[in-house]
Amino acid sequence: MREKLVLAYSGGLDTSVSIKWLTDAGYDVVACCLDVGEKKDIEAIKEKALQVGAVESYAIDAKEEFAEEFALIALQGNTFYEGSYPLVSALSRPLISKKLVELAHQVGATTVAHGCTGKGNDQVRFEVAIQSLDPNLKVVAPVREWKWSREEEIEYAAKNNIPIPMNLDNPYSIDQNLWGRACECGVLEDPWAAPPKGAYALTKELEDTPDTPTIIEITFEQGKPVALDGKAYSLADLIMELNHIAGEHGVGRIDHIENRLVGIKSREVYECPAALTLMQAHKELEDLVFVRELAHFKPIVEQQLAQVIYDGLWFNPLTDALKAFIKSTQVYVNGVVRVKLFKGNIIVEGRKSTNSLYDENLATYTSADTFDQHAAIGFIKLWGLPSKVHAEVQASLAEK
Amino acid sequence: MREKLVLAYSGGLDTSVSIKWLTDAGYDVVACCLDVGEKKDIEAIKEKALQVGAVESYAIDAKEEFAEEFALIALQGNTFYEGSYPLVSALSRPLISKKLVELAHQVGATTVAHGCTGKGNDQVRFEVAIQSLDPNLKVVAPVREWKWSREEEIEYAAKNNIPIPMNLDNPYSIDQNLWGRACECGVLEDPWAAPPKGAYALTKELEDTPDTPTIIEITFEQGKPVALDGKAYSLADLIMELNHIAGEHGVGRIDHIENRLVGIKSREVYECPAALTLMQAHKELEDLVFVRELAHFKPIVEQQLAQVIYDGLWFNPLTDALKAFIKSTQVYVNGVVRVKLFKGNIIVEGRKSTNSLYDENLATYTSADTFDQHAAIGFIKLWGLPSKVHAEVQASLAEK
Amino acid sequence: MREKLVLAYSGGLDTSVSIKWLTDAGYDVVACCLDVGEKKDIEAIKEKALQVGAVESYAIDAKEEFAEEFALIALQGNTFYEGSYPLVSALSRPLISKKLVELAHQVGATTVAHGCTGKGNDQVRFEVAIQSLDPNLKVVAPVREWKWSREEEIEYAAKNNIPIPMNLDNPYSIDQNLWGRACECGVLEDPWAAPPKGAYALTKELEDTPDTPTIIEITFEQGKPVALDGKAYSLADLIMELNHIAGEHGVGRIDHIENRLVGIKSREVYECPAALTLMQAHKELEDLVFVRELAHFKPIVEQQLAQVIYDGLWFNPLTDALKAFIKSTQVYVNGVVRVKLFKGNIIVEGRKSTNSLYDENLATYTSADTFDQHAAIGFIKLWGLPSKVHAEVQASLAEK
Amino acid sequence: MREKLVLAYSGGLDTSVSIKWLTDAGYDVVACCLDVGEKKDIEAIKEKALQVGAVESYAIDAKEEFAEEFALIALQGNTFYEGSYPLVSALSRPLISKKLVELAHQVGATTVAHGCTGKGNDQVRFEVAIQSLDPNLKVVAPVREWKWSREEEIEYAAKNNIPIPMNLDNPYSIDQNLWGRACECGVLEDPWAAPPKGAYALTKELEDTPDTPTIIEITFEQGKPVALDGKAYSLADLIMELNHIAGEHGVGRIDHIENRLVGIKSREVYECPAALTLMQAHKELEDLVFVRELAHFKPIVEQQLAQVIYDGLWFNPLTDALKAFIKSTQVYVNGVVRVKLFKGNIIVEGRKSTNSLYDENLATYTSADTFDQHAAIGFIKLWGLPSKVHAEVQASLAEK
Repeated sequence: MREKLVLAYSGGLDTSVSIKWLTDAGYDVVACCLDVGEKKDIEAIKEKALQVGAVESYAIDAKEEFAEEFALIALQGNTFYEGSYPLVSALSRPLISKKLVELAHQVGATTVAHGCTGKGNDQVRFEVAIQSLDPNLKVVAPVREWKWSREEEIEYAAKNNIPIPMNLDNPYSIDQNLWGRACECGVLEDPWAAPPKGAYALTKELEDTPDTPTIIEITFEQGKPVALDGKAYSLADLIMELNHIAGEHGVGRIDHIENRLVGIKSREVYECPAALTLMQAHKELEDLVFVRELAHFKPIVEQQLAQVIYDGLWFNPLTDALKAFIKSTQVYVNGVVRVKLFKGNIIVEGRKSTNSLYDENLATYTSADTFDQHAAIGFIKLWGLPSKVHAEVQASLAEK
Repeated sequence: MREKLVLAYSGGLDTSVSIKWLTDAGYDVVACCLDVGEKKDIEAIKEKALQVGAVESYAIDAKEEFAEEFALIALQGNTFYEGSYPLVSALSRPLISKKLVELAHQVGATTVAHGCTGKGNDQVRFEVAIQSLDPNLKVVAPVREWKWSREEEIEYAAKNNIPIPMNLDNPYSIDQNLWGRACECGVLEDPWAAPPKGAYALTKELEDTPDTPTIIEITFEQGKPVALDGKAYSLADLIMELNHIAGEHGVGRIDHIENRLVGIKSREVYECPAALTLMQAHKELEDLVFVRELAHFKPIVEQQLAQVIYDGLWFNPLTDALKAFIKSTQVYVNGVVRVKLFKGNIIVEGRKSTNSLYDENLATYTSADTFDQHAAIGFIKLWGLPSKVHAEVQASLAEK
Repeated sequence: MREKLVLAYSGGLDTSVSIKWLTDAGYDVVACCLDVGEKKDIEAIKEKALQVGAVESYAIDAKEEFAEEFALIALQGNTFYEGSYPLVSALSRPLISKKLVELAHQVGATTVAHGCTGKGNDQVRFEVAIQSLDPNLKVVAPVREWKWSREEEIEYAAKNNIPIPMNLDNPYSIDQNLWGRACECGVLEDPWAAPPKGAYALTKELEDTPDTPTIIEITFEQGKPVALDGKAYSLADLIMELNHIAGEHGVGRIDHIENRLVGIKSREVYECPAALTLMQAHKELEDLVFVRELAHFKPIVEQQLAQVIYDGLWFNPLTDALKAFIKSTQVYVNGVVRVKLFKGNIIVEGRKSTNSLYDENLATYTSADTFDQHAAIGFIKLWGLPSKVHAEVQASLAEK
Repeated sequence: MREKLVLAYSGGLDTSVSIKWLTDAGYDVVACCLDVGEKKDIEAIKEKALQVGAVESYAIDAKEEFAEEFALIALQGNTFYEGSYPLVSALSRPLISKKLVELAHQVGATTVAHGCTGKGNDQVRFEVAIQSLDPNLKVVAPVREWKWSREEEIEYAAKNNIPIPMNLDNPYSIDQNLWGRACECGVLEDPWAAPPKGAYALTKELEDTPDTPTIIEITFEQGKPVALDGKAYSLADLIMELNHIAGEHGVGRIDHIENRLVGIKSREVYECPAALTLMQAHKELEDLVFVRELAHFKPIVEQQLAQVIYDGLWFNPLTDALKAFIKSTQVYVNGVVRVKLFKGNIIVEGRKSTNSLYDENLATYTSADTFDQHAAIGFIKLWGLPSKVHAEVQASLAEK
């Protein structure tokens, strides 16, 4: 009897060819088509899978789950890999893996397949996630295995009546979801060259952006954005709406020379209009409501969270512990942030919160001042005491 | 016999009144006027000190020393306090302290004075630095001691023939040096209000910036910017030139709710056109030339360096050790970064270096690829092994 | 009407004198006598307070609360300040503060008082904790205020019929609770001198310990020790029992030159037989059950947790977040640890757990080996790739 | 023409068989026999290599270089992997790699070989180090490649006249150098079983140790131990002497469940009498001479240094930067530490230093006290201000 295999199916050439290749290899291929906000017609993709040979095909709308369970913690954790990359694809991989494993259990599959090559991060993320969710499942990576050139792949597709996309000469490799869009390859491989216009899809060129800013108020409840200009949205809808609004102003471009988990540097171009806007707004709200000690340690946790997500360790107990830290802090992050989007800039103009720790009467230099300036003298004395004792010892040694 | 006291003299009302007040308190006041890039006429300030009662007055141009010994390590250390503030005033305080102590030794003073109030960070930075440089020097802080209202201070000045500045109703408190300009008080004390135009001096409003970008190439040698568009500059001159160029494009504004060392939150507005441009360019050059492991740990050191500088611990052995770490890494940071300054944006368009670790033949998806994709299989197996074993144990426990 | 004040009352000279001094200062003093495991007769102490002038007196047994809410997280967080001090007094201060505030609310007091001097950490811990629990309460520190010499204090006591303890010439200052005993002062002030026998009370001299070891099995459930040699104990009882058992073997002495929060170095001698034994056992159990990534990051969180506890920041949101991290990890920490206590040594001889990630079939060098040695080749290739590319670039630069 | 290969030759069965196996594979094998303090007769080993087929053989005494360049930084960096393992083998691998590469260059070899299997850390350390030193050298790992059982290996040895050691039934796998001795395998593979006596060689059983302690004074200059009881030693000699002295007292045993870089947990038994004694003494001297801020951050650097050494990244720029940090701090680490070695315990009884920051007049509770207790009031006010403001806001929200 043939084994069942669940394939993460995108509708593109690689995974379409994979259906045939895996069928030839002895599997009954079940296609799994996911929508995590890349704005594609998953019902059509689901149909296509059947046309090219899948025995079953499923379309899953995972946008809200992606927003609530993955994008939200990235936002609350202010997670930027290497200070630059907001973890777009890295965030969707564990969700897709989870759906693949669930579907494998549902249809009785022994094996799961993904369409990654052997030099990217995503193969690691898929395989480690799948192993963590069900260590008994086998994983196959047809594109990594067949080692064909582009020409050989097209020839195989033609021979097997697999539709060949018209934009085959598109020089870019793209991945997209609610949290942003990643683009690599082509001219981008020269780090001295500026990315051409064609590398971008979600954001306008600065030259083409409106001459009047958009000013928007974002409402947060417990660290979660819940409304734009007072209008409530589901999280996925809010992100999609903000991608549109901020993208119009050229907001969200990132050009990053990145250290991949597999050991090489690559040059990546990202567009994350909503993600960057929300992360900036959220951080400034935290600046207002977080006690100093928390504000100073959270970045250590944030950096580690970004690292484990990038490194494919979503389903690792360390990630759970880092999330527990972050979640514990978000109870204070309530309020409204007023953001001006203009000419590529995200300008936080104002922030207010019932949890605000900014105390005008302490901060003011006016006569309303309630700060005890005399206390500073004692504070400085003890704060500087270790430095002073050190200096005294050094001075006495220098004299000798 | 009267004791000699060296006063950090800015030429403003507070320190002018301090000369008289300290003289009344029994000191012979020696004024010390420093230029760290705030674009003021220090010779005139030096004269003014004598007019209001100083017994001696010195003008010191410390711009290059500030650039080389303080701003440079801040740049190389990518130091932002709380991820936002590039440490403008925090950087100049240890240098000013050093000059005060040197002058005290030179003129035989027993005491040093600064013009800070009792609720800011700068009093801590001055006093800890001075104690660290000479634990035997006394420190006096007349403004913190006299506790006058603004009106009482003006009355005292008038009575003592101390010139009262005409812009007394300027609602802002300003500090400026090569690395930027800090502005607080007034309307800024409401964190929901946007900073008014008048809070800014070094940067144009976005609406008033040119419609064509400036593209500039910055050359780094061992982590130090040495040329703009191929033209060599001293570091201080390069920073001042870039402040002008970038400020024209509205680059460099920061609006920060900040946790002060003395325990309160304050709202600060900074302008750092050159600092932000250089830090962005320098970081992207590091992205190109740093080995991954270094790139991932340096931020921990950077955050700590920002903290100790902010906290007034410049002359602490920890700072020396952090600097030794940073300096050891900069030997690789050679190359050119091409930056587009436009409408408030700092866009790094390209970077190149003889130390570049970006290897097009490893990164490419073309046939030039030299990356061993097969190695990824073994890598994933061992990278994910801890997660897998953990999952196996959890699965077997769940079954029970 | 006189204001009511709640005083943390220990029964010693300082706090007994404080009752009178505070009464003279206009307060009605309510004594609060707590048992956190220091093995004293709190009912007698409660009576004594009334004898020396308290208007009300309360005795509270807080041993189990101290064990469950304070010692347990210190154990699970493996918290050692500066790698040495298991936070004995630092842990009890927030609990005592909480009880003082609760009692103040109960009896309608406006003020709380503690018996600390002005140069230790505990004054900071008490006052920050009390302010965090009720910012409206006033705090008084009579010992810090009266500034008497020992002789003046005794004279005052004699004049006011306050009983003077017979061991007044005891050269040590002691604080004790379930988690250990702290001793400072006297001959200990010379860091070159060895602590004399008299500095110790819970642990035998090595020379006097038994010549046969005690081997004990400690059972942990979710990171909490629940049984010794299979016999269940409440946490407080387990700690007290283990203090006795381990102390007999000379286990638990610590001699630490410590950086106080108030800026000085002090020399402290601690005895923590149970705490050190439990922390060693717990850590080794974590070594068995934690996935690598968690094992490598948790120490960063542990160090920060030790710091905030030492620094008196128990009721700070950062502490809550650190605790959330730690608690999330303890679900895996189940099992038994076999410890040999002998001649001052805590030797973990064996550990076992249903959550063990140690897989003999992976670790073995016998023929049962299931580890894929071939995978190592790919792993090494990618693990070392950044180093290799760096080396290639450096080599090519060196050639030039 | 046959290619030349340099083999790290230990004289044991694996590397002896490797000489023959590599010769059969077409290489001219040059044996490289290193002494890093494992107390073996390297001249005899050198001869043996020639007997079993090496074309050339070299014996190198690298003890002092190992001590000065590798063990010393491990000591100064207080490096314990996972808080337990003092990096014994991990430290020698980069030195051996360096010697192999130097010899390869000297004799004109194209290839280097080591005797590691495919499941340990050492293969990674050797290969990454060799690639970092000369990316053009090939690396061969015969034991990993031949995949023989123990019986097959012995059969091959017998057939090829390779001497078979008499202790073949020794169940342990041992690695040893100045810094300690590592032992794995056999009964140790059960983490519940106590290590048997036979697993140890450098340390006496506690039951067999002397009943009188040895008290020894260790002198440090700039963080380097230079004398024992006032008698000067070279560093390698000092370590060897101390291994003997401390081992007699049963000092230095470590039993560690360890996370290997290749993804598995293993159980390792180490003996490090000198290393543990020196690290304890050195740490306590740092406690005396380090300013608080340095003492609190250095552990972060230490943990990272332990990690990179364990992970085989010695020749990585991150390691250089971490070393620069550590080295910058050691200038203060001068003085004498008095250590009592007794019944397995390392008891630091006293420490003194011209750089001591311990100030008896600040620390004392006697009348010599110079500490300004009044300053504490101001300090506490500002230290606790963030917590207090947070509490006020929470209280006011709770009321609503």
